[in-house]
Amino acid sequence: MKKFESIHDVDVLSTWLAQAKEIKQDPYKWDTLGKNKTLLMIFFNSSLRTRLSTQKAALNLGMHVMVLDVNQGAWKLETEVGVVMDGDKPEHLLEAIPVMGAYCDIIAVRSFASLSSKTEDYSEKILHQFIQYAGKPVISMEAATLHPLQSFADMITVEQYKKTARPKVVLTWAPHPKALPQAVANSFAQWSVAMDYDVVITHPVGYELSEEFTAGARVTNNQEEAFKDADFIYAKNWSAFNDSHYGEVLSTDRSWCVDAPKMALTNAAYFMHCLPVRRNMIVSDEVIDSLKSLVIEEAANRVVSAQTVLLNMLK
Amino acid sequence: MKKFESIHDVDVLSTWLAQAKEIKQDPYKWDTLGKNKTLLMIFFNSSLRTRLSTQKAALNLGMHVMVLDVNQGAWKLETEVGVVMDGDKPEHLLEAIPVMGAYCDIIAVRSFASLSSKTEDYSEKILHQFIQYAGKPVISMEAATLHPLQSFADMITVEQYKKTARPKVVLTWAPHPKALPQAVANSFAQWSVAMDYDVVITHPVGYELSEEFTAGARVTNNQEEAFKDADFIYAKNWSAFNDSHYGEVLSTDRSWCVDAPKMALTNAAYFMHCLPVRRNMIVSDEVIDSLKSLVIEEAANRVVSAQTVLLNMLK
Amino acid sequence: MKKFESIHDVDVLSTWLAQAKEIKQDPYKWDTLGKNKTLLMIFFNSSLRTRLSTQKAALNLGMHVMVLDVNQGAWKLETEVGVVMDGDKPEHLLEAIPVMGAYCDIIAVRSFASLSSKTEDYSEKILHQFIQYAGKPVISMEAATLHPLQSFADMITVEQYKKTARPKVVLTWAPHPKALPQAVANSFAQWSVAMDYDVVITHPVGYELSEEFTAGARVTNNQEEAFKDADFIYAKNWSAFNDSHYGEVLSTDRSWCVDAPKMALTNAAYFMHCLPVRRNMIVSDEVIDSLKSLVIEEAANRVVSAQTVLLNMLK
Repeated sequence: MKKFESIHDVDVLSTWLAQAKEIKQDPYKWDTLGKNKTLLMIFFNSSLRTRLSTQKAALNLGMHVMVLDVNQGAWKLETEVGVVMDGDKPEHLLEAIPVMGAYCDIIAVRSFASLSSKTEDYSEKILHQFIQYAGKPVISMEAATLHPLQSFADMITVEQYKKTARPKVVLTWAPHPKALPQAVANSFAQWSVAMDYDVVITHPVGYELSEEFTAGARVTNNQEEAFKDADFIYAKNWSAFNDSHYGEVLSTDRSWCVDAPKMALTNAAYFMHCLPVRRNMIVSDEVIDSLKSLVIEEAANRVVSAQTVLLNMLK
Repeated sequence: MKKFESIHDVDVLSTWLAQAKEIKQDPYKWDTLGKNKTLLMIFFNSSLRTRLSTQKAALNLGMHVMVLDVNQGAWKLETEVGVVMDGDKPEHLLEAIPVMGAYCDIIAVRSFASLSSKTEDYSEKILHQFIQYAGKPVISMEAATLHPLQSFADMITVEQYKKTARPKVVLTWAPHPKALPQAVANSFAQWSVAMDYDVVITHPVGYELSEEFTAGARVTNNQEEAFKDADFIYAKNWSAFNDSHYGEVLSTDRSWCVDAPKMALTNAAYFMHCLPVRRNMIVSDEVIDSLKSLVIEEAANRVVSAQTVLLNMLK
Repeated sequence: MKKFESIHDVDVLSTWLAQAKEIKQDPYKWDTLGKNKTLLMIFFNSSLRTRLSTQKAALNLGMHVMVLDVNQGAWKLETEVGVVMDGDKPEHLLEAIPVMGAYCDIIAVRSFASLSSKTEDYSEKILHQFIQYAGKPVISMEAATLHPLQSFADMITVEQYKKTARPKVVLTWAPHPKALPQAVANSFAQWSVAMDYDVVITHPVGYELSEEFTAGARVTNNQEEAFKDADFIYAKNWSAFNDSHYGEVLSTDRSWCVDAPKMALTNAAYFMHCLPVRRNMIVSDEVIDSLKSLVIEEAANRVVSAQTVLLNMLK
């Protein structure tokens, strides 16, 4: 297994879910598989959950872990090809990537969307340069357009709590003070459709996601209608994807906040969010503090998700 | 053992001191006890000794260690309850803490006093939120009001060097250019009284510490009188504790610097300080560079102190 | 072995090269030698290759590793002796160094030249304070005047690729937008002369290096003449060493860039650079992307170099 950047890199999803279940029950079952193997984690953007959960997953498999914060304790990296490097960037990714590859067995990379250029973000330039030049397997720890470790953890969580074979899973936009990437939403749509859940996406007009990821889901601008009979509510903010407003905040409508009256419309749905979450913007205290909130369990499953990916890469 | 925030969390102090002695003699005696256990160290404030010594202590026990610098390479955390999170803090401690707890077996936290609100500092809000919400044992790596890992290391050091059953131990205030918390002084007073040493605290008028921690010690504003026949001089700066001047620097009187003439008043006392120390403010070069200075040994005992705490938590 | 700051700390270079070869073939041969031994890596300056390769080398030997970024997540350190510490530096190296020594078995330090005082840089004040006060073996991870881990990796690389017993090795100055230390150039000269290669150094007038390191090499200001029949071209920028212009950029002449026409003058020479490299300043894309470029292999050999040093310290 050479890379993990989307669900397309999973050979048989049902096998992965079974492995995840086994890892959850016995996290140290393969604690010598990673002996003398090193995971290098590279962060172009800050991280709490991803940093700790991926590190923990590797340690559970007996791997060594090295963490590098780029642009903070390390070099600023040039990413353009063919330039005369007479500016403030002393090193090119063309050297930095294969060198990093030389120092480890698996590379994990986090690099968010800039939201300044849709073409550049959706080409996944940095992640694909790592895949092309590292010479070692590459794991996305959230790239510009997808966050597969999160989505796999989300699927593990839904499987753990679902009460019907094909639950109704609702991805709802919610307000946020800053412009955020579409990565978590894109990725959740992609994975939940692949799981053959009954997927509904709801958001204000103008927040349509790429059909590359949402094909197979129903889309509505009526949040209350979407919530009806839902088994899982997955809240997330994202900025506009459409060409003329890419990366913009089109709405700060707080009526989209997930609160108790809206949850009352559902089939006693569980509440999910990838965290970090803005309380009383995305979700009310009442909902996130309720017994139906799965946010901590979801975050805990990030270890299981990462460990399953690493297991398949090491095997 | 669910927490280590003060001496009150130690069941039998004499047993701990015996364990510390054993650890000092053979640091790797329990080097498989921590197998597949992970210590997560969280720093809201910077650290050298505490970071390295606690990490080393965990490694000596065969644990994994993950380090997280909050507000630096990680999220800024909201600590207020009930707020609408539309500002610059993207995550609430109410999510962050249980998530961190999910990724480790023991959490260690460093969070200094702000010195802006006595009520807030002395309520130990951040530390107590960790103890309440982490779901895992919590170790204070210095909180707003106490620094128990330091004080335990100090007691180990006094026990190692004392020549009489009940040494005279003097905690003396000394000048410093900036306002510092009372944590080290409070904690030293609390532990040395509990050890039943002959404890004397000396400081300029206005620098009285909380009687919650100093009860059992004699207090004087006459430094020279305090030093007479002392076996150990423990120097430390702290800012004012009293309500009307909380957190203020009331004196920069350099005559309180611990120098050779003052040490000549003692019973050939050893000199101690928790480090980092301002040379020629807190203590003269001559004293800290003398053979009676225990500052390096004291710092070395920080590993022993932390390892004893971890040992008792793992057992 | 108490320190590794230059080639003078290597007992028998041929033995080290043989060990390096063995490590390269089987990196995990001594993977229990470092059990319960801890390497502390201290960075006063940022690092990518050195940080990761030295860490990897220690892990390959079964050591624990702790990393400390000074002046970033840790204390600012006072380095002057005898001062009254009433400024912004809360700790003196005289305490910090022995304390760090107390928490590990081997210390590795990176501290670049300031380029503001030749006397201070060439006295290697910080490195020598560590060697004097740490109480543990000290490894230079690049100091003010030398970079021995890099040079040893360079020698390993030349030995791996050379086709004649005594190759012609050319160290060439090349342009760079900022003033850089002489450490890599000094060190490469010192080691390649010690290897008894046919060493030629070429640079514009005014860029003469210290004869302490270049003695035994031929020096010319004619780059094309130097390149004739060369087997290895080692490019590097450095600032002026001579007293009146110490640390200055005297030339930004881009005609010194290593390009294909110049490489055509050589004996099909390999191209080397320690990285990070400014493309199209130091070397053209064409040359560094050619099959004769050894820059990635050279960087990979940094693990081998560091591992050999650690092996000799642990033994």
